[in-house]
Amino acid sequence: MKDDYKVIKNGGVTSAQGFVAAGISSGIKPAGKKDLAIVYSAVPAQIGATFTTNLVKAAPVKVSFEHARNGSVRGVVLNSGNANACTGVLGIKNAKSMVEKTAKALDCRPKEILVCSTGRIGVQLPMPKIERGIKRTVSKLNVDGGADAAKAIMTSDTFRKEFAVCVEIDGRKVTIGGMAKGAGMIHPQMATMLCVITTDANIDKATLRKCTYEAVEHSFNRITIDGDTSTNDTVMVLANGMAENPLIKSYHPQLGVFQKALVTVMRKLARMIVQDGEGISRVVEVNVKGAASNADAKLAALAVAHSALVKCSWCGGDPNWGRLMDAIGYSGARVKEEMVEIYYDGLVAVSNGEASRTPMAKLRKIVRRPAFTITLHLHLGSGEYSVLTTDLTEKYVTFNKGE
Amino acid sequence: MKDDYKVIKNGGVTSAQGFVAAGISSGIKPAGKKDLAIVYSAVPAQIGATFTTNLVKAAPVKVSFEHARNGSVRGVVLNSGNANACTGVLGIKNAKSMVEKTAKALDCRPKEILVCSTGRIGVQLPMPKIERGIKRTVSKLNVDGGADAAKAIMTSDTFRKEFAVCVEIDGRKVTIGGMAKGAGMIHPQMATMLCVITTDANIDKATLRKCTYEAVEHSFNRITIDGDTSTNDTVMVLANGMAENPLIKSYHPQLGVFQKALVTVMRKLARMIVQDGEGISRVVEVNVKGAASNADAKLAALAVAHSALVKCSWCGGDPNWGRLMDAIGYSGARVKEEMVEIYYDGLVAVSNGEASRTPMAKLRKIVRRPAFTITLHLHLGSGEYSVLTTDLTEKYVTFNKGE
Repeated sequence: MKDDYKVIKNGGVTSAQGFVAAGISSGIKPAGKKDLAIVYSAVPAQIGATFTTNLVKAAPVKVSFEHARNGSVRGVVLNSGNANACTGVLGIKNAKSMVEKTAKALDCRPKEILVCSTGRIGVQLPMPKIERGIKRTVSKLNVDGGADAAKAIMTSDTFRKEFAVCVEIDGRKVTIGGMAKGAGMIHPQMATMLCVITTDANIDKATLRKCTYEAVEHSFNRITIDGDTSTNDTVMVLANGMAENPLIKSYHPQLGVFQKALVTVMRKLARMIVQDGEGISRVVEVNVKGAASNADAKLAALAVAHSALVKCSWCGGDPNWGRLMDAIGYSGARVKEEMVEIYYDGLVAVSNGEASRTPMAKLRKIVRRPAFTITLHLHLGSGEYSVLTTDLTEKYVTFNKGE
Repeated sequence: MKDDYKVIKNGGVTSAQGFVAAGISSGIKPAGKKDLAIVYSAVPAQIGATFTTNLVKAAPVKVSFEHARNGSVRGVVLNSGNANACTGVLGIKNAKSMVEKTAKALDCRPKEILVCSTGRIGVQLPMPKIERGIKRTVSKLNVDGGADAAKAIMTSDTFRKEFAVCVEIDGRKVTIGGMAKGAGMIHPQMATMLCVITTDANIDKATLRKCTYEAVEHSFNRITIDGDTSTNDTVMVLANGMAENPLIKSYHPQLGVFQKALVTVMRKLARMIVQDGEGISRVVEVNVKGAASNADAKLAALAVAHSALVKCSWCGGDPNWGRLMDAIGYSGARVKEEMVEIYYDGLVAVSNGEASRTPMAKLRKIVRRPAFTITLHLHLGSGEYSVLTTDLTEKYVTFNKGE
């Protein structure tokens, strides 16, 4: 194993030692679909968490933010089908009530519980159903409950998103696993996405937080489907120390191993979210290289990834690189048209800002693949950025049209 | 008439005295569709023009920018079907050649001619066809040629866009008329839109330029369809002085009358562009009021107008105000959730950041209209901004999917 990770088959949020989970149908969603989940650690866990940057924050985000700031935690309660966002004072009361009921059933303090909600905005939670549901969920907590929990947080997701790896740190086996949900409103700076990661690593709070921020920056903050940033996004990492490795602190020689494994888990879950984008047909990695700065590279990459026209052409399998040139031109990044090179899966489409000799038929073949990479080289410096995105399809529109 | 304008029936780019136009099929577009137009003034005209802010500028934009900077002009040659963008040195040569051939046929100097192109990016112009076409177009110039010219600049437009008004200035009748084309890639800071406005007003160059910038800011820069800013956008105003009104200079008492009429023409053409957005089904005016600043109001309005999720819900006739709250929350504008009020055509949907008591059925009725207004009041200051936009439809995607 050494410094490399090993993927755990069917791994998820209960792969790490000491974690149990469950997911049930509490009646928030119609038709008996699972909509309530709890993840619980047998011992207190350190917590690293990032929340939506949206100024309109859902009630559970406000409550969880406070609890994550404090000491260690024991668990998380999550519901789908209702975002508990734009629900005013009653919304906050309900989020707190979810926390209290969960803490009571688990015999811990309310501030040791985090809460997440996802679903439609502006509707109050059906609290009696949820309160009854919490008791039932706690009674079902078990080490094989990860899949049920992952199912219970799904909204428009078409498949469960779970992943886990283990690594060796100072001679101890450390496991990191998690679950996530997408699938629309996905955008850098978080999205309607929830992600709970659990690990048995023994790591101090400050180091865990730093690792969490960095890993989110290189995974969930590098995906975008529709450019909308949701009110509810939350990524949390719970570390309960049960692997009994020597405490990981900053400058710990094995910190890189833990960090790499954490990024691996988050990237894998992030890619699953993109692959499960609402109604999409292609996953596209947009790489910008040679920008005047990293900030410029980010501007250019996001302009491409957010352009409705670019995304439509991908949907049609049309290598319309003119729309890419257009997008980088208005991105705000420094661009010299006559320096630009564009590659589709390594095949040159544009050189010196003009059409290359590559036949369109060859490029078309690439853009019709379910996944491909576009690299834009600006030849102005060493700035780089990369983002994972999707096409824009009729199905996406149909899906998001309404009730 | 006094200080108010009068709409000229079937008015357009040849309504003002001394202007002629023509539009023909030169063979750039298949199936004999019109694709080449010329607008010509019998006497030298002052010019005010604004061009795309995209760093990737089409060849005709570069050429016209230089010519508009110089003295007076005589005419404009425009083609559709090919944008002459990302076409390198040869593209510039071809744009200059269009200008030279037009100048020769009109017996004026090349620098008195502007050039515009619109259509697909990255393909060289078919110059022999265009050169032959220019001669034929010049031979057909006439005072009733405005409609043909307006037709020849259409790309995905489904109807011609023409409008003209006259006003009285210092006892003289002054006419302002124009033509425009849309219809995708429409976004503040210009779009794949061309607009040629002609007027017989006698106005000095500096004042005309100022009037043009201001009018564009309050018309074409306040519309957005898909958020993409094209490489080719151009708005130009030619003023040939044949109305023989006393010269309009800054601080001229009648300047406001001219300015108002110019804005009226541009707003009307801008609204036509939005109404003709590719595959759209609704025109929505987004007003933000009470923002901490005008800049904040603009951020909030554009976040709403660009949100794919918001636009999809309009398409479905779904008053999903949660998505509006979400959009203003991530817009970058200062927002206090509990202060926000949202109105649909004057009917309150959100007050204090929460659902109002207005039944959803009533709101749904509004969102199913072909045109409606959404007003978001942030209650933080006196900043205001307004933008005209559209929904996002399956048809838009289908339209932009392919070649």
